[in-house]
Amino acid sequence: MSENRTELSQLGEFGLIERINSKFPISNATTLTGIGDDAAVIDSGDESLLVSTDMLLEGIHFDLSYMPLQHLGYKAVAVNVSDIAAMNGRAGQIVISLAISNRFSLEAIDALFEGVHAACKNYNVDLVGGDTSSSAAGLVISVTVLGRAPKDKIVRRSGAKANDILCVTGDLGAAYMGLQVLEREKQVFLSNPEMQPDIEKYEYIVGRQLKPEARMDIIHELRDKSCLPTAMIDISDGLASELFHLGKQSNVGVKIFEDKVPIDHTTFETAIEFKLDPITCALHGGEDYELLFTINPADYDKIKNHPDIHFIGHMHNDASQHVLITKQQTVVPLQAQGWNHFK
Amino acid sequence: MSENRTELSQLGEFGLIERINSKFPISNATTLTGIGDDAAVIDSGDESLLVSTDMLLEGIHFDLSYMPLQHLGYKAVAVNVSDIAAMNGRAGQIVISLAISNRFSLEAIDALFEGVHAACKNYNVDLVGGDTSSSAAGLVISVTVLGRAPKDKIVRRSGAKANDILCVTGDLGAAYMGLQVLEREKQVFLSNPEMQPDIEKYEYIVGRQLKPEARMDIIHELRDKSCLPTAMIDISDGLASELFHLGKQSNVGVKIFEDKVPIDHTTFETAIEFKLDPITCALHGGEDYELLFTINPADYDKIKNHPDIHFIGHMHNDASQHVLITKQQTVVPLQAQGWNHFK
Repeated sequence: MSENRTELSQLGEFGLIERINSKFPISNATTLTGIGDDAAVIDSGDESLLVSTDMLLEGIHFDLSYMPLQHLGYKAVAVNVSDIAAMNGRAGQIVISLAISNRFSLEAIDALFEGVHAACKNYNVDLVGGDTSSSAAGLVISVTVLGRAPKDKIVRRSGAKANDILCVTGDLGAAYMGLQVLEREKQVFLSNPEMQPDIEKYEYIVGRQLKPEARMDIIHELRDKSCLPTAMIDISDGLASELFHLGKQSNVGVKIFEDKVPIDHTTFETAIEFKLDPITCALHGGEDYELLFTINPADYDKIKNHPDIHFIGHMHNDASQHVLITKQQTVVPLQAQGWNHFK
Repeated sequence: MSENRTELSQLGEFGLIERINSKFPISNATTLTGIGDDAAVIDSGDESLLVSTDMLLEGIHFDLSYMPLQHLGYKAVAVNVSDIAAMNGRAGQIVISLAISNRFSLEAIDALFEGVHAACKNYNVDLVGGDTSSSAAGLVISVTVLGRAPKDKIVRRSGAKANDILCVTGDLGAAYMGLQVLEREKQVFLSNPEMQPDIEKYEYIVGRQLKPEARMDIIHELRDKSCLPTAMIDISDGLASELFHLGKQSNVGVKIFEDKVPIDHTTFETAIEFKLDPITCALHGGEDYELLFTINPADYDKIKNHPDIHFIGHMHNDASQHVLITKQQTVVPLQAQGWNHFK
């Protein structure tokens, strides 16, 4: 008897998700959208219900040597709320499953839940349930969020049309560069524990890594301006990867301009200091939790003066062409590298 | 500066949950019931939405040396559906977060999802989303389930009244004894890999451990007989522990009779073989995923002939008295030992 073994790295995360998705057709009438968007959509009368889940593992998604537990608690909630924002919804409830080893004291768990509490308060979300158990190794925190949106206001990844304008909030690459600084300071500290970490001038980017915010403010502002995006996604794996999701699911091509991609000056300077190309950090950095969305050109005037929304390009008809126009006007194919957790 | 350290084992799992609960008051109008029941209840028009979550960790909740991945996938869904059953609801959707290390092949993950698929089909549940990531150590599977029930048919832990009859489905202690057999055979195998495991005669109890079922059949039958329980909980931590939850949340006392507690003959004989008291296994064994519920005595005739529902005692007015009447007619206080994961 021969046994086949296929490595997960051959598929990658997105390949694995597609494989699972293909085997699980939807059978309940209340399931409106299943796997494949920022959140699932479930029929619930006038308003639809949105559901999303994210799990954070010690040693993979966070390092407690520089991630305060309070921030971890905050982040675990924020990244889930961000998925609801990306559907143009409002988060309402979360459940949390937590696995902890006995190296954590009650005070440590209290600190974690202080962060959860701060995020719940900030995003107006109720913690309604969960599960706690021990862990043989590191800390694991899994959050599922429930949100709502009127059925006709839900924004999926699949709604972009040719000529729709690509918009991105805030700035990109900061969380990634913050992580590089934290990792470097950790190595300095490990080699000489008397060295004090030098992170003051990196405060902004370190904060973007440790305490990201879901852009609910943008969701409220777009609603106030009656600007309904045609497609939307939050930037967790990196701009390029998310552009590929929008392009593929909307069946259109993507064109963005390097000089329009918003990069904070600290991100820019730190990238140079680390001998990294700032645009690469912005394209592939991940964990920014900004919103990437498309609007009908007719809606452009409604938001053109918004100080925190940037217009980085547009969609076009050729779904096989996802390109970046560099500052030198060169056309470069975009690479959807994202994070391959299985490598 | 002094730093206090309180060990989690001083509180235990239930103490920790109460502590968290006390710090998270409900603020959204759509949250009808938060932490503290088998599932949270969320307003959703005519039908309420039920949400519950359970996380299973390798080395804590399962041992892959005897737990086939297919069964693990099935069990991860079943234990969540069981929480919805315990609210008298029907499960509709699940999301799954999975952390896997590269020691798992694609074929292994396929096997896990075959089990998930079988459970989804059996319980008529859609897999609608999830999250996959790598794990530095073992396999982690976190499932959140969404269910529904008409608002006036939801059964909470808190509705039992004095004189209500305590009912339990199936039989108890089997999953625990199945685990003892699996652990013993593992030790035998480790000390002599040529020994073949001898589990044929333990098939029933081993199956109860490896592939538990949510008792949705009972939920449908109770509805068909118009018998609405006054309180309900599923038996995950053990009968005694769940009786304490019902007693405390309903503010009544519990009285059960040893000779009424259903114990399968294989469970009984295996307990004797392991020099354990069968009733102790039934009271504290856990993981049976049977339903424990109370009914108004007026409803007794509706279900008295059901072959798989057992009447083990009743509630009474003194909420401080939870007792077991032994076969010798001795009155013994019940102990809510459950599992303390933090010890």
